[in-house]
Amino acid sequence: MSEKIYVGVDLGGTAIKVGICNQEGELLHTYEGPTEKEKGTDAVIENIEKYVRLIVEQSPYTWDQLVGVGAGVAGFTDLRAGVILLAPNIGFRNVPIRAILEERIGKTIVIDNDANVAALGEAWSGAGKGVTDCVCYTLGTGVGGGIIINGKIYQGFAGLAGEIGHISVVPDLEAIQCGCGKMGCLETVSSATGIIRMAVEAVERGDATSLSMIESKITAKDIFDAAKAGDEVSIRIVNRAAFYLGKSMASVAATLNPERFIVGGGVSKAGDILFSKIREVFMECTPAPLQQGVEIIPAKLGNDAGIVGAAGLLLR
Amino acid sequence: MSEKIYVGVDLGGTAIKVGICNQEGELLHTYEGPTEKEKGTDAVIENIEKYVRLIVEQSPYTWDQLVGVGAGVAGFTDLRAGVILLAPNIGFRNVPIRAILEERIGKTIVIDNDANVAALGEAWSGAGKGVTDCVCYTLGTGVGGGIIINGKIYQGFAGLAGEIGHISVVPDLEAIQCGCGKMGCLETVSSATGIIRMAVEAVERGDATSLSMIESKITAKDIFDAAKAGDEVSIRIVNRAAFYLGKSMASVAATLNPERFIVGGGVSKAGDILFSKIREVFMECTPAPLQQGVEIIPAKLGNDAGIVGAAGLLLR
Repeated sequence: MSEKIYVGVDLGGTAIKVGICNQEGELLHTYEGPTEKEKGTDAVIENIEKYVRLIVEQSPYTWDQLVGVGAGVAGFTDLRAGVILLAPNIGFRNVPIRAILEERIGKTIVIDNDANVAALGEAWSGAGKGVTDCVCYTLGTGVGGGIIINGKIYQGFAGLAGEIGHISVVPDLEAIQCGCGKMGCLETVSSATGIIRMAVEAVERGDATSLSMIESKITAKDIFDAAKAGDEVSIRIVNRAAFYLGKSMASVAATLNPERFIVGGGVSKAGDILFSKIREVFMECTPAPLQQGVEIIPAKLGNDAGIVGAAGLLLR
Repeated sequence: MSEKIYVGVDLGGTAIKVGICNQEGELLHTYEGPTEKEKGTDAVIENIEKYVRLIVEQSPYTWDQLVGVGAGVAGFTDLRAGVILLAPNIGFRNVPIRAILEERIGKTIVIDNDANVAALGEAWSGAGKGVTDCVCYTLGTGVGGGIIINGKIYQGFAGLAGEIGHISVVPDLEAIQCGCGKMGCLETVSSATGIIRMAVEAVERGDATSLSMIESKITAKDIFDAAKAGDEVSIRIVNRAAFYLGKSMASVAATLNPERFIVGGGVSKAGDILFSKIREVFMECTPAPLQQGVEIIPAKLGNDAGIVGAAGLLLR
């Protein structure tokens, strides 16, 4: 057996997920172990090594078939230097992870941030399979993104390309401040955080909504469920999130003319009520030639996108 | 002498401009002759060949040193097929110009549209020299653009990347319809056409402005001159054009994180009153990390950008 394999690592605050991919981006095996960030940086890195060795040992593949290890991490990374500059959820600051892992594992190591890595995973073997140029949105706590050009993550000048959550789309008079300090970012209305904020505000001011019956904290799923059941306030909230997503895609389309927009993350689970509105607004705001053949579709890989994309860093 | 040379052609409605560039993008010789579009497609193509042969003959270079000819044209082009699909200002429709010119000239021929070509010229040896990733705006009758990634024109899925004039930036309630059929495009407020429209409307409704003293048709230059002289209506118009340019750049920065924005075309001649406002709005709308090291500067090559960029098509 001479097939080459690629290990992807999704380095999260609670768990480290590792997976083996083949050259086509198929996820063949996965393993998940605790991060143990409370034990410090060295322990976390030791765990990464341990899980990588373990998954290869337990697979039908040999260590020699392993080309290298890619890792995605939520935080700021210096890709060229292979350093995690700041990753609050695992407590890393200025950790030269590439050098350390290369020394320990003896294979090529590549790192990137989680939004880019998830985008690459989807582009490689998920909803973007077969397409060379696409733009991925991840709608979670924030709105992350990744620009895929010619099959690769496009980094931009300072490695910040794909910060589409910070496209300013909300008109001044309706804008609120984003975590980044600026006004009216897409993230303020189309992230799970933004959607929940709008719902909580509606309940607090006494709007007539079934959401006011929920006794625990309102979740994004509660809002989608209520919208699907016909709750008008929830429909308005989902429409607003979708409206600005569609607007931002129109803007990205006029800039990059990608073939596909891929939308993943928790909020994308809202499904058709979200996507039909996004597409409607996109068509309304985008000149016809820039719409032609362009698709807006849900991500496919779910939580595996991070592992697959991390493995893909080695190939693409 | 074994230096290689590249000829660029700027195919305009009135004149065909040709120029010789060296490998560094220096424009060494230029020649300009009439387009004679009234004589039909064949005559125009014959003129291109004539001027290309002429400029090389009259130069110190030999025909053997000529690598090929690049041509930029205002209109829709199919780059891969080398066909001008529609170029109203020279009366071309479905002209397989690459095949025809290759047959006649016997060298490699490359074509692209004028906005892309001007962007490449600026990126190659103008205001973008030394920078690999930049975004060019051309503020003329419309707002054209070109995305330069890794030193090359980025075409996108259907060859429409860089249609930044059609980023929808004007809020719905203030938006007017663009030539493309959509509402609120950047082009409606930041092109020469848009600026002149705002000025004519101000004069017509009797706003107190020195522009109402102008007896001939108001030009963009009139408006800049009046703004510099302190005319408040003109200042407001220039500020509005600049405001939406800055907004659009913030959106492009969040998507692509380019190192430089290069602004050319007639409207860019407004100079500091335009640029200082663009930069101010850009800084206001863009998260700090996406601003860092990013410059917004005027184009340098003026009308030569088209010739230089056309020559550059052969190299980049």
